[in-house]
Amino acid sequence: MAQSPKGVALVAQSGGPTAVINASACGVIQEALRQSVVTGILGANRGILGALEEDLFDLTAENPETISGLLSTPSAAIGSCRYKLGSLNSDQAKYERLLAVFQAHNIRYFFYIGGNDSMDTADKVHQLAQEAGYDLRIVGIPKTIDNDLPCTDHCPGYGSVAKFMATATMEAGRDTEAMYTFDAVTLIEAMGRNTGWIAAACGLACRDDRDAPQLIYVPEIPFDPDRFLGDVEDVLRRLGGVCVVVSEGLKDASGEYLRAETGSFGADRFGHRQLGGVADYLKELIEARLKVKARFNKLGTCQRNAIHFASQTDSREAYLCGQEAVRQAVAGRSGVMITLERISQQPYECRTGTVALSQVANKVKYLPREYMNAAGNHITQAMREYALPLIQGTVPLRMHEDGLPLFVRFRRLTVPKRLPEWKAR
Amino acid sequence: MAQSPKGVALVAQSGGPTAVINASACGVIQEALRQSVVTGILGANRGILGALEEDLFDLTAENPETISGLLSTPSAAIGSCRYKLGSLNSDQAKYERLLAVFQAHNIRYFFYIGGNDSMDTADKVHQLAQEAGYDLRIVGIPKTIDNDLPCTDHCPGYGSVAKFMATATMEAGRDTEAMYTFDAVTLIEAMGRNTGWIAAACGLACRDDRDAPQLIYVPEIPFDPDRFLGDVEDVLRRLGGVCVVVSEGLKDASGEYLRAETGSFGADRFGHRQLGGVADYLKELIEARLKVKARFNKLGTCQRNAIHFASQTDSREAYLCGQEAVRQAVAGRSGVMITLERISQQPYECRTGTVALSQVANKVKYLPREYMNAAGNHITQAMREYALPLIQGTVPLRMHEDGLPLFVRFRRLTVPKRLPEWKAR
Repeated sequence: MAQSPKGVALVAQSGGPTAVINASACGVIQEALRQSVVTGILGANRGILGALEEDLFDLTAENPETISGLLSTPSAAIGSCRYKLGSLNSDQAKYERLLAVFQAHNIRYFFYIGGNDSMDTADKVHQLAQEAGYDLRIVGIPKTIDNDLPCTDHCPGYGSVAKFMATATMEAGRDTEAMYTFDAVTLIEAMGRNTGWIAAACGLACRDDRDAPQLIYVPEIPFDPDRFLGDVEDVLRRLGGVCVVVSEGLKDASGEYLRAETGSFGADRFGHRQLGGVADYLKELIEARLKVKARFNKLGTCQRNAIHFASQTDSREAYLCGQEAVRQAVAGRSGVMITLERISQQPYECRTGTVALSQVANKVKYLPREYMNAAGNHITQAMREYALPLIQGTVPLRMHEDGLPLFVRFRRLTVPKRLPEWKAR
Repeated sequence: MAQSPKGVALVAQSGGPTAVINASACGVIQEALRQSVVTGILGANRGILGALEEDLFDLTAENPETISGLLSTPSAAIGSCRYKLGSLNSDQAKYERLLAVFQAHNIRYFFYIGGNDSMDTADKVHQLAQEAGYDLRIVGIPKTIDNDLPCTDHCPGYGSVAKFMATATMEAGRDTEAMYTFDAVTLIEAMGRNTGWIAAACGLACRDDRDAPQLIYVPEIPFDPDRFLGDVEDVLRRLGGVCVVVSEGLKDASGEYLRAETGSFGADRFGHRQLGGVADYLKELIEARLKVKARFNKLGTCQRNAIHFASQTDSREAYLCGQEAVRQAVAGRSGVMITLERISQQPYECRTGTVALSQVANKVKYLPREYMNAAGNHITQAMREYALPLIQGTVPLRMHEDGLPLFVRFRRLTVPKRLPEWKAR
């Protein structure tokens, strides 16, 4: 294995924020500070966009208190983006620009914290560097609340959203239980464009047959409105009220989204349709067909940033993935993503591994069918066993003297540009 | 003052649940157990409906662990309702039925935990008992997340929703900050049919001019869409992204709700219109007029039951109000509601007082104009000073071995009916 080059490390965050993506950044920064071959640490403002536009800031200039404060600060402190590079051929100018930026700043280590699309970008930058003979170590760090990255037992970010959403479901369920003769149905819309991992995690709230949620619907199982109404009626007959969790990305038998978001921005830059409105739609369906009052809760971006009740296990693993990425890069690895491997279930034990970025890029890990019951409307014991270890413990918060949490922000000491101005879009 | 009668205490909960309404019930039950004149403690299933239908259960038969577990269990464990009795004349049969139930069970103490409408009901039952010469001590215990009861500095339930919503706003605001070039606007819809207390509390999240929420709109100040769009544009120009908190009950200059909920159940039994959809509406307005992408979060019933991050101050005061209600009743008071009086701001100190139920019933305490800035789009220092003491501390949770919170449920040992069957509706 080649001698590790002396050079600068670049860290970037990408895609939708999570409660613990900053814990991964913290792991990268703190570990990089310990490595003698790392001569500087830069942050790319807003993911790969910051790299393209040479919009970089000096992370070594930040206060160590700020760096450690990342552990209790949600969302992406370096700045995030939704931006996908095309193939090496179609987006040649962009890839060349990236390499030029890396060379201009002697960036030899690139750590990209993100999901499927980000791993695709990282993989292409890796190919480019190899083709150009530029010694660049690229390691991807998994991040997604959706938990849909393949080749890893689970993704940092998922345990925290799972813990918060299960708890919020438990709480809203008690509301339904107290008010069922007035508001008979409570719908909770969970994030999850294509996969039901988050909705399924809400099922952890259910310990006995009176507990919420009584019903759960996920995108992997085609949604049948009539069967759904039948399920709701059954629970109404048994308990008088019902709490239902639905994934935002529910699809009908033909694979069409049950409800795409209205408004002027129906699709993002990747061509993904922005979803939402499923719970609202089902509320109206229930009221019209079953003649009972329904409500819906849509926790939206609050769910993915809920550091105030995040999983300590998740936070530790997010940190570990960041730390391990640096160690792997310095040890000579490149073009890989850090993975989590569950080596023991009881007691739960997880170690890191690696997988080629090309194995991960653009692939989706769906909720296994056996994690849902035969009727496709609740989780099984297998799902409980999979998810429960991931939600353990609570992340200690830094509190402000006003009694609310204290989050950190970088000072963002900008690094002078060395290349001509360039606009990524 | 007359000798306190020996007899049974009846406890009921009413209206929308809160994170700490059970703490008030706990205060009533634990204090009533200490009082020798109280010969039994009954719960009325689903508020006044349970009393009308003689659907009562024995709270002394519950495990003491369950009673103390009420402190960390959200929503209304006794069961709640939305049910308002008419005048003594128009609903004579119901009032007579109530008195008959009280007499049949020798109920001499009635503790009603609720909001404006509940205090009206309690007041009428009080008048009836006096007219009938039946020695009944009725004490109301304030409860509402809306914080809109008059004659009390604040209401138990408010501090907890304030703390959770301010925190959720802080968290979602960091999401907007990281993603502003893609999702420029985040709207958060706060509960509040007629008052802006909860939306205003979200303002506590804002400590400097980059912090969310940058804009807040409340029902007390007529909503002007053009001024709103101008405000949003100003923040977008300054920061690139904006997090806006809106009350569900925003009204236009003519006093009409900006948006009433769609669906088949547009009004509840009190004739209150069920609101919602304001944030969704404003999202579409922003996208159409400002050509930027917007999102909305609607935390719904999750916000009012968030015991996992509830205010310890709020929980303690909720307990204290329950406890004090029993002491006042045993001391001979009736027809009153317990109030909270802030006797010192620094250090914050609050003691209980009482006010005649008739002073509270059906009245609304609006957010004072001076708690909002001149532009009507954010809070002032006066609001911060009012609200901050109410959100201090965190309620200790009981945790289940699975790592999620543990909530209690009553066994609900039903008390035999002594009167003929009767349907309240």
